Amino acid sequence: MAGSIPLFAGHPAHDLLPIADFQAIVDAAWSKPDVVRLFNYGDEQGDARLIGFLARRLLEAEGLRVGRENLMIIGGATWGVNMLTQQLTAPDDVILVDSPSYRDALHIFRDQELEIRSVPIDSGGINIAALTETVHALVEAGKTPKFYYVVPNFQNPTGITLSRERRLAIIKLSRRFGFSIIEDDVYRDIRFVGELPASLYALAKGKNVFRLGTFSKTLAPGLRVGWLVADSEWIERFVGSGLLKMGGGANPFTAAVVADYCLSGRWEGHVAWLRDQYQRRCEVALAALRETMPDSVRWTRPRGGYFIWLTLPPNAHVDDLELAAKQERVYFASGKGFFVNPADGKRHLRISFSYVPLDDMRRGIGTLGELIKRLSR
Amino acid sequence: MAGSIPLFAGHPAHDLLPIADFQAIVDAAWSKPDVVRLFNYGDEQGDARLIGFLARRLLEAEGLRVGRENLMIIGGATWGVNMLTQQLTAPDDVILVDSPSYRDALHIFRDQELEIRSVPIDSGGINIAALTETVHALVEAGKTPKFYYVVPNFQNPTGITLSRERRLAIIKLSRRFGFSIIEDDVYRDIRFVGELPASLYALAKGKNVFRLGTFSKTLAPGLRVGWLVADSEWIERFVGSGLLKMGGGANPFTAAVVADYCLSGRWEGHVAWLRDQYQRRCEVALAALRETMPDSVRWTRPRGGYFIWLTLPPNAHVDDLELAAKQERVYFASGKGFFVNPADGKRHLRISFSYVPLDDMRRGIGTLGELIKRLSR
Repeated sequence: MAGSIPLFAGHPAHDLLPIADFQAIVDAAWSKPDVVRLFNYGDEQGDARLIGFLARRLLEAEGLRVGRENLMIIGGATWGVNMLTQQLTAPDDVILVDSPSYRDALHIFRDQELEIRSVPIDSGGINIAALTETVHALVEAGKTPKFYYVVPNFQNPTGITLSRERRLAIIKLSRRFGFSIIEDDVYRDIRFVGELPASLYALAKGKNVFRLGTFSKTLAPGLRVGWLVADSEWIERFVGSGLLKMGGGANPFTAAVVADYCLSGRWEGHVAWLRDQYQRRCEVALAALRETMPDSVRWTRPRGGYFIWLTLPPNAHVDDLELAAKQERVYFASGKGFFVNPADGKRHLRISFSYVPLDDMRRGIGTLGELIKRLSR
Repeated sequence: MAGSIPLFAGHPAHDLLPIADFQAIVDAAWSKPDVVRLFNYGDEQGDARLIGFLARRLLEAEGLRVGRENLMIIGGATWGVNMLTQQLTAPDDVILVDSPSYRDALHIFRDQELEIRSVPIDSGGINIAALTETVHALVEAGKTPKFYYVVPNFQNPTGITLSRERRLAIIKLSRRFGFSIIEDDVYRDIRFVGELPASLYALAKGKNVFRLGTFSKTLAPGLRVGWLVADSEWIERFVGSGLLKMGGGANPFTAAVVADYCLSGRWEGHVAWLRDQYQRRCEVALAALRETMPDSVRWTRPRGGYFIWLTLPPNAHVDDLELAAKQERVYFASGKGFFVNPADGKRHLRISFSYVPLDDMRRGIGTLGELIKRLSR
């Protein structure tokens, strides 16, 4: 639709997809003697070359030593969240999430009829005192949570990164009370500045942490290729599950091509380029916010990822803004979807700087600024 | 491993994969203006062009009129069985399967902690009297089954096709007692001779039947693309589920390329060619069985699909045969995996004619014949 500005869209802009490079990789694949591995069932654990690449990269990029037995290829991080939920829980089990948390993960947890308890976050991630209190109350009620789900770096929807100190506190709690941690680390490589804290997986020395990664943000979402890092006993169990036995591993065709792409050395270069692109996009969005938002609006200043989280003045309601913006053909993600109790999101919205062209981004944010001024009068 | 004969392998032989044609389709995709749809998130319902193709084909091939709202693209039939099980059941629910039934579906049902009741089949499919009795007993015990799972055409592992009369009887029972039917129809297009009965979905006029299809048998398993036909309300519900919301529909890259392949007209030609190839392979296997098996061995004579099911003489045990065959580097699927109670499969084995070269097939079957003679002495 010409003229509409989808600030809700959390996926890469078209010009950020490495289509020409990917084409070169696919072109080369046809003449390889093992081309058949693209087409037939593969190992349940997933493409072995890609597993080897990922193990090496975790060592080089993070100093994290994991064996092949700690890795498996999955059909995107989504697929992983769904599989982990399916394997680790039964209906009515309790799980823990951030407030706000990733909307579509909440959707999966609701689908599987879990009882979702959310704990507020601030600029350093989840509030540890509140988390501790929640866990204690649950354990006392005989309802020990099964896992804590978190997007630790540049969280969706807020862009916030969980601090190292809090990561350690969470691990301590998880050990004391016997719950697992699902670390949905899909934005790690889209880091603009500085260093990230070590992953929960690394800090916990691999025990009871399930760490998900993906090529959706750094290559292309349409390929549906990601990975899981976990304790080898768990990997063995997942690899032996019915879903993988039947399907011959996750997406053999696209996983094999992604392996070729990574092993060609192109991926690292593309990621470095992407970081600059997303940083530029983020800066444009933040500048537009500074220029156009009334003083009563607050927002996060992410150091990576795709998203900025806005908080409206007390007398404004996101439903009114959504309705008014729709008339101007500007679309954002209402805060309500990111909370277990949607009303908690009535003064919030998420905008994404990953997708829309820069001019549209400026125009869309400008429109939102005008509308908020008008609505909060 | 040189010299080993994997008669267990239920996937296409390398020379049956249309790699060159598929390459031509992919080559052409790069220069299309909508190439980006291969790389980004797509509709939750799946590739719209592929859905359109499938709706037209169901009409042309079977006279079955389904709307786009009755179809969705899935990441292979496996993915569909897993999703349906997840959506339709909770742990400890009862479901019904054939005895024997598809091993890897049993695996999924066990993973999800279902109570699996199996009902014997004969050359026309499930025994309706036994099914009726089982359902009555379950309903009386307050445990109405959630669904009956069946591979209706050229069943895995037996190659048996469910008769039209029994399909109608199953639908009648399912309506009376309120259980669903999962019709895992993955071998339909690999039909050598004659006509198939109308699908359970067609006979039930689309009510309470979930029909799965796949490109794994007629194109390539490594692409992970299949489809689900169901009532539009169910499709809407599945499309809105967390798994699909998060993933942007099933495998956008490979689904888009499969759509191009199908719309080019190449698929129909390839399927016709494949039927001849598999028929030839099946005939070679059946001839080898006639020539080499002792009179005390019985086997099915499938009219399509990938598999032949063997029944050993009363004094033979499949474990002994498996051990002896392994020493000769001949491998088959033991019957034990296809039964809820593995001991029921101790006189059975499945061999596949889809994968090994014809000479190996003759040699492997010959070896099995010799070993059975020796073991049943």
